[in-house]
Amino acid sequence: MGIVDKDGNIIARNSMPTKTSSDYHAYMNSLSELMKETVALVEGGVDIKGIGVGAPNGNYYNGTIEFAPNLKFKGIVPVVEFLKTKFAFDVIVLTNDANAAAIGEMIYGGAKGMRDFIMITLGTGVGSGIVVNGEMVYGHDGFAGEIGHTIFDPNGRDCGCGRKGCLETYASASGIKRTVFELLASMIEPSSLRGANFNDLSAKTIDEAARKGDKIALAAFDYTGEVLGLKLADAIAHTSPQAIFLFGGLAQAGDLIFEPTKYYMEEQMLSIYRNKVKLLPSELPPGDAAILGASALVWKELK
Amino acid sequence: MGIVDKDGNIIARNSMPTKTSSDYHAYMNSLSELMKETVALVEGGVDIKGIGVGAPNGNYYNGTIEFAPNLKFKGIVPVVEFLKTKFAFDVIVLTNDANAAAIGEMIYGGAKGMRDFIMITLGTGVGSGIVVNGEMVYGHDGFAGEIGHTIFDPNGRDCGCGRKGCLETYASASGIKRTVFELLASMIEPSSLRGANFNDLSAKTIDEAARKGDKIALAAFDYTGEVLGLKLADAIAHTSPQAIFLFGGLAQAGDLIFEPTKYYMEEQMLSIYRNKVKLLPSELPPGDAAILGASALVWKELK
Repeated sequence: MGIVDKDGNIIARNSMPTKTSSDYHAYMNSLSELMKETVALVEGGVDIKGIGVGAPNGNYYNGTIEFAPNLKFKGIVPVVEFLKTKFAFDVIVLTNDANAAAIGEMIYGGAKGMRDFIMITLGTGVGSGIVVNGEMVYGHDGFAGEIGHTIFDPNGRDCGCGRKGCLETYASASGIKRTVFELLASMIEPSSLRGANFNDLSAKTIDEAARKGDKIALAAFDYTGEVLGLKLADAIAHTSPQAIFLFGGLAQAGDLIFEPTKYYMEEQMLSIYRNKVKLLPSELPPGDAAILGASALVWKELK
Repeated sequence: MGIVDKDGNIIARNSMPTKTSSDYHAYMNSLSELMKETVALVEGGVDIKGIGVGAPNGNYYNGTIEFAPNLKFKGIVPVVEFLKTKFAFDVIVLTNDANAAAIGEMIYGGAKGMRDFIMITLGTGVGSGIVVNGEMVYGHDGFAGEIGHTIFDPNGRDCGCGRKGCLETYASASGIKRTVFELLASMIEPSSLRGANFNDLSAKTIDEAARKGDKIALAAFDYTGEVLGLKLADAIAHTSPQAIFLFGGLAQAGDLIFEPTKYYMEEQMLSIYRNKVKLLPSELPPGDAAILGASALVWKELK
């Protein structure tokens, strides 16, 4: 958590783990106390305008976290309602992490002034936030923007969501690891990755191998870009954005991921869209993106 | 063309073919004359508020038709600019046919009061119009909403757009014909369609055969629904609409197309979206949808 000013400067910060407690009320009580302590950290005091929360499976309309598979809180958790009992601010808003990142990019980052863009977060999974006509797309139920769960191959890899072949099983940190293991089986080139086991192999190791010219690692980045590029071409055929921003661990691989993604995206794109859509790295600082995104929600609301 | 009142009643109509002339100025002059004659048809006179145009490859922002493959006019054609030299109405707007149909559905049809929905037109090709937060999604360049050209199978059927495996090569009137021919080759069941040649076979004939229990025809509808359902599940993961409307020749097959599409759409959908998104037939009268959609553009603009 952080206290963020209008220009995106974080003037105080704090943190607490999400996985400590499965008791939602106890957790939210501790969180609220820590928020008050964090406000008190700001020298000379500060006029707080509101609270923004970025959370997995966050629902903007309801202010709830709903059935988040990676949290200990089960079912539907009324976060905004709870915070309203503790704080009297006008604006208390919540959305999912990727939507918050998109709004962060719009308020503080590379999407300033853009009315139509897509944010793709390439982390453990693949998240997305879609902006149309300068507004976040929440959909009728608050859950729009799950491009990570569009289907690349209906007979493809098992996904944590229970289906097969979702984009996220290919274009995430774990997705590229799965690709490496497929390629270790199908290709015969020597590779430093032949000594790695599945549990320990990380996207960072694959990145380092690729930079040393490892053919398996390079082929894995190429295939990741092919799948991502194809599904981004599909996304463009929906909302025709001015730019797509890539954010998260895998995006930090730079040219290794941007070049094949751009190539295949253009190749698989309907001709009217070609050479129009920028593929850009997020301008949010990686460590601060979650805080900036959540705070941007408030500034966006006050606009 | 037609004169349409606020409630969607067509009080005068006329028509002229689009393929008569490749001379754009001559064509637009004749069209403008006929528009004036059509206005004069209304007994007691009429106060015209504006002109709406639905056109293939129509660009809302520029008021142009751009590189429409099925028209004789080549390149970029400035339709709105031309009409402004002939008519003094405040509102003269243009968009593509599928977007116009979506706005028609919103103003006169089943999408009244809906803020998030998708219109899919299943005709010779597959068109789409996406509405988010009560507004048409045009994208940064005016060309958003080409779900017919999202890719089902990158190694699939040749598409008129130059790529392979677009949804429209499966889920259109010609797409289901292609499916029938694949099934005639792969299945051994007897079928009335074994006497048909590719040139003459129509979606209507396949529809009639299916209603008589023809196994090939039924399998063709099932496969069409499977492909369409999968790509609609993808579309839902972008904008999470309250409803998807199916319009056009193939949609008139009713249960034959709605049942498999609904089944596979639900099956391929991320669980948070399940049993929430209505799959509905358009409520626009088929013969009048083009006129109603174009006129709705004007009412939408005046709102």
